[in-house]
Amino acid sequence: MDIHDLTRELKLKSDSKIVMLVADGLGGLPMQAGGKTELETARTPNLDALAARGVLGSSIPIMPGIAPGSGPGHLGLFGYDPLKYVIGRGALEATGIGFELRDGDVAIRCNFCTIDAAGAITDRRAGRISTDESGPLAIKLRQITIPGVEVFVEPVKEHRFVVVFRGAGLGDRVKDTDPQATGVPPLDPVSDDPGSQRTVEVAKAFLAQAKQILADQAKANFHTMRGFAAKPKLPSYQEVYGLRAAAIAVYPMYKGLARLVGMDIVGQAQTLADQMDLLQQHWNDYDFFFLHFKYTDSTGEDGNFDGKVKRIEELDAAVPRITALNPTVLIVTGDHSTPAYLKGHSWHTVPTLLVSDCCRPDGETQFGESQCVRGGLGQFEAKYLMTLALANAGRLGKYGA
Amino acid sequence: MDIHDLTRELKLKSDSKIVMLVADGLGGLPMQAGGKTELETARTPNLDALAARGVLGSSIPIMPGIAPGSGPGHLGLFGYDPLKYVIGRGALEATGIGFELRDGDVAIRCNFCTIDAAGAITDRRAGRISTDESGPLAIKLRQITIPGVEVFVEPVKEHRFVVVFRGAGLGDRVKDTDPQATGVPPLDPVSDDPGSQRTVEVAKAFLAQAKQILADQAKANFHTMRGFAAKPKLPSYQEVYGLRAAAIAVYPMYKGLARLVGMDIVGQAQTLADQMDLLQQHWNDYDFFFLHFKYTDSTGEDGNFDGKVKRIEELDAAVPRITALNPTVLIVTGDHSTPAYLKGHSWHTVPTLLVSDCCRPDGETQFGESQCVRGGLGQFEAKYLMTLALANAGRLGKYGA
Repeated sequence: MDIHDLTRELKLKSDSKIVMLVADGLGGLPMQAGGKTELETARTPNLDALAARGVLGSSIPIMPGIAPGSGPGHLGLFGYDPLKYVIGRGALEATGIGFELRDGDVAIRCNFCTIDAAGAITDRRAGRISTDESGPLAIKLRQITIPGVEVFVEPVKEHRFVVVFRGAGLGDRVKDTDPQATGVPPLDPVSDDPGSQRTVEVAKAFLAQAKQILADQAKANFHTMRGFAAKPKLPSYQEVYGLRAAAIAVYPMYKGLARLVGMDIVGQAQTLADQMDLLQQHWNDYDFFFLHFKYTDSTGEDGNFDGKVKRIEELDAAVPRITALNPTVLIVTGDHSTPAYLKGHSWHTVPTLLVSDCCRPDGETQFGESQCVRGGLGQFEAKYLMTLALANAGRLGKYGA
Repeated sequence: MDIHDLTRELKLKSDSKIVMLVADGLGGLPMQAGGKTELETARTPNLDALAARGVLGSSIPIMPGIAPGSGPGHLGLFGYDPLKYVIGRGALEATGIGFELRDGDVAIRCNFCTIDAAGAITDRRAGRISTDESGPLAIKLRQITIPGVEVFVEPVKEHRFVVVFRGAGLGDRVKDTDPQATGVPPLDPVSDDPGSQRTVEVAKAFLAQAKQILADQAKANFHTMRGFAAKPKLPSYQEVYGLRAAAIAVYPMYKGLARLVGMDIVGQAQTLADQMDLLQQHWNDYDFFFLHFKYTDSTGEDGNFDGKVKRIEELDAAVPRITALNPTVLIVTGDHSTPAYLKGHSWHTVPTLLVSDCCRPDGETQFGESQCVRGGLGQFEAKYLMTLALANAGRLGKYGA
């Protein structure tokens, strides 16, 4: 029996409101022995006040030692076992640029490349062509037509673009055409799966036309296809939790991930203040709000300890706008750690706080990694955060009599 | 998806070095209410210094409440789920005496017994015959020949010895011949498994010849066969982690367990000083070093609290020879607890410390059970220690994009 078998059975109706504030890459590390983490360094009077009222813990995004990407990191927070539900690379890339995948679509990550007269790859990334050059080329590929299939071509960045095929009977079990080497031609799309043969044919037709269209280009005179992936089948928030859920995010990736689990994407926020405005405006329309804050991750990725500290303080300053709405449950966490010390996503546990009128406070009065280690939620897998949220919101009945 | 599915996919090349120092049966208990454990009693300035730099936690060998033997205890530490990978009794016995099992071998634990004129067992352990008497008898059984099968007979202790059959088509699904009672004859070897019929025939042939050879013995005039077991199929450290791994151990059992997961057995250490010499000599040849220290377990088994304290202090004194080599990751743990108070393996969590330049220190400054309860690694299953080690060594990529 998995988490959703239980929540489907036990979910209760309620007027309660849950807010999950995700500070991307929140967890950190000290820059030197004996030092403090970014979160511990930041002045966070509002988060500390929540810590004092609430309960702390350390979230394990996937399993001990495993650093997640944004996809599995958020699936875990949303209560979807990230080792069971996998978002294919093509689907994640499409999601990340805001493309709304439908059931049956196949999404593919494509790289422009350079081939020589014999067809062998001389540069797998077309000389790292700039976005200014590659964008119009991707648009040019939109002239490709394939009978019975709707074709979408979406620019991404530099040498990358996304292709989506929409039509009946398109499986996604097709192997990459990128040979991962130069001096050899791209591979033909192939598949062992009878259900994906039509996709193979469609991909071949696309590649043949693309080769003609790109023939006169100096650098990007062909492309490879990687990570063929259907839209992942994720049950919706409404179905598994009985929640009308809204996502209030700035970046397309996080809106896309939220859309995959059936959240409504609310507004067009550009700033944290916009996000807070939207939260307030839509307060009566939803039961659950996912608020995403990107900059704790991006400053961490840049190795900018002080920048991350500032961003945490900025987030802290916005907290009163949430608490003013008096949510039944407020959770503050991250999808993973991004310590400035490591300049990237890491495996470390993520500081997490949960406040409700029926949580069991643990005596901690500051929101930091050290306090979270001692917190009442202990160490827990991120995928259990949603059941804790529902329980604290009075939205889960008893299991068994 | 299990741990090794992930590590196979995510493993990265690196020059980093990991040392796992296993103090067998490290965890303990106070001898009286309000007292300290063996580890807390011991003066351990070097381990305490590591604790201050590193992160502590409490390892659960199998699951809460389950005390492991050496086999599952070490499999867990090596990252092999001890409830999934089972080492059959015969194979563990052979491993324990340093016999190098090959794929296809079937190993069997045998007990000398006494039978009466009618063939009924009168003593299932041949009057607990001494090792001095039983050893030569086991050697005598080496004259047994079976066409098409290589036969090995290895003395163990007292009434015990090991038989290994090597040949084609030998399954291990054969039932014990020990009837677990006296007054009845040993059972014939039988099997429900078609793939093990040849093993049944080979075992019968062995028993028939052994009965003749032992006929004139007063006590050990026959034997039973138990725990038929093939060499367990464990993927190797190289394959699942990309690690060249060395085991530096004194006792055959631990060398054998390490060999089963593909570690090289380095040297012929007799003392902890020998082990440290070998570590230093082979430092450039391997990525991972398993160092095994037996005496924390054997003193615990003896109920010798003070002896265990001394052994821990002896181990502590050797730690600077490890840290001098500047390992990227150093782990100190045990395969289980062996509290002197209980004189045996126990289910208690095992104090564990991990040091690397990117662990998240938890403010603890001593290595003891009480500190480990508060440590940043929390309580974790032993099987996750290897993913933590790899992550801290920069040897694991990100899961998902």
